[in-house]
Amino acid sequence: MDSEAVKKQKAEVGREAVDFIKDGMIVGIGSGSTMWYLVEALGKRVQAGLNIVGVPTSKYTREHAERLGIMMKNVDEVDHIDLTIDGADQIDENYQGIKGGGASHLMEKIVAVNSRKNMWIVDETKTVKTLSYPVPLEVIPYGSKQLEKRLAKMGLNPRLRLDENQQPVLTDSKNYIIDLFLDHIDDPKELASTLDSITGIVEHGFFLDIANTIIVQHPDGPQIINAR
Amino acid sequence: MDSEAVKKQKAEVGREAVDFIKDGMIVGIGSGSTMWYLVEALGKRVQAGLNIVGVPTSKYTREHAERLGIMMKNVDEVDHIDLTIDGADQIDENYQGIKGGGASHLMEKIVAVNSRKNMWIVDETKTVKTLSYPVPLEVIPYGSKQLEKRLAKMGLNPRLRLDENQQPVLTDSKNYIIDLFLDHIDDPKELASTLDSITGIVEHGFFLDIANTIIVQHPDGPQIINAR
Repeated sequence: MDSEAVKKQKAEVGREAVDFIKDGMIVGIGSGSTMWYLVEALGKRVQAGLNIVGVPTSKYTREHAERLGIMMKNVDEVDHIDLTIDGADQIDENYQGIKGGGASHLMEKIVAVNSRKNMWIVDETKTVKTLSYPVPLEVIPYGSKQLEKRLAKMGLNPRLRLDENQQPVLTDSKNYIIDLFLDHIDDPKELASTLDSITGIVEHGFFLDIANTIIVQHPDGPQIINAR
Repeated sequence: MDSEAVKKQKAEVGREAVDFIKDGMIVGIGSGSTMWYLVEALGKRVQAGLNIVGVPTSKYTREHAERLGIMMKNVDEVDHIDLTIDGADQIDENYQGIKGGGASHLMEKIVAVNSRKNMWIVDETKTVKTLSYPVPLEVIPYGSKQLEKRLAKMGLNPRLRLDENQQPVLTDSKNYIIDLFLDHIDDPKELASTLDSITGIVEHGFFLDIANTIIVQHPDGPQIINAR
């Protein structure tokens, strides 16, 4: 569970990022606990007259945004996306990230690669020198046990993600999640490329060369990074 | 539609390949029109006492085989697969192939990569110098229109596969199929690697370095190729 300090940072950065959403924009809206605060703040702006279209990265985000009166369209119903704002599970010193702790990284990545600009908003616990967060893989259920054996042989320490009833977590696309528990990931591009080539993996949780702007919330205020 | 000569070759090669299935084997069973003849012939052998376990590559194959009394287990219920026999849409001079005309290439590839040996059985119209068959991509429905635009910009001539009611064809995993219509594919490995890295593509139809044995049926008999 998040400490009170982390919760406060998430709420602050979520509220601050709303200022980057301008009238008339088509905005990709990420998923997760930090994004929850952004959606709440955005809902208030929309109720006060801000005119935007949102593109969801999960069923949960779509429902949350629509309840607050934000007009939502799916990624194939818009011509383009101006800006996507999302959280991240971990960001390294080269501004490469891992996402998918919430099992939404497939839809998040589909929205991200279709966006002109991407912004990540995080509390300060998310930034590290070298990535070490579990790398989530969305995988096809058929053959997933054989895939887990194969990943274990490769030394990638895989574990099928289970829910509270010890059943496999299902993504919005009805796939499973396998997490790779690695102490440190020195070359995320190399591992990402290896994972890309493995049959049965729909999408891994590396988000490489994607974030343009990162807002890191510290106790004394936000740090805005122009990453690329 | 197949000519009578091609139909005859498919039936012949399907019946011949059954001889490679030995008592006690765990056998991956492919999908498609040539495999239909193999499953029919295999059913007769099983009814006559042959003891094997089959692993299906599609819902259709599973149902067909079970109707004939073949014991079927899914790929995660077996320890290993001794041999998988499948058809192919096109095979080049380096014995690289394209599969997925029947929209089953994802499950076919999951079974193939988990098999100790792979055999392809084809009529002689399937062998070519350079691959030119439409390359099927199983894709996530969310974002598939944006993906099609992206592939078009890359010059890959994509087309969403539609059914007789002009609705997107759904795979067994409830995804869509986009076919790439290319005149000739000089470097399938390079294109496969590019496709591997694109978000939203679950699996492409290139089967590279997979076939160990290929049986090509000619009018005057079968040609057995030890590919690798």
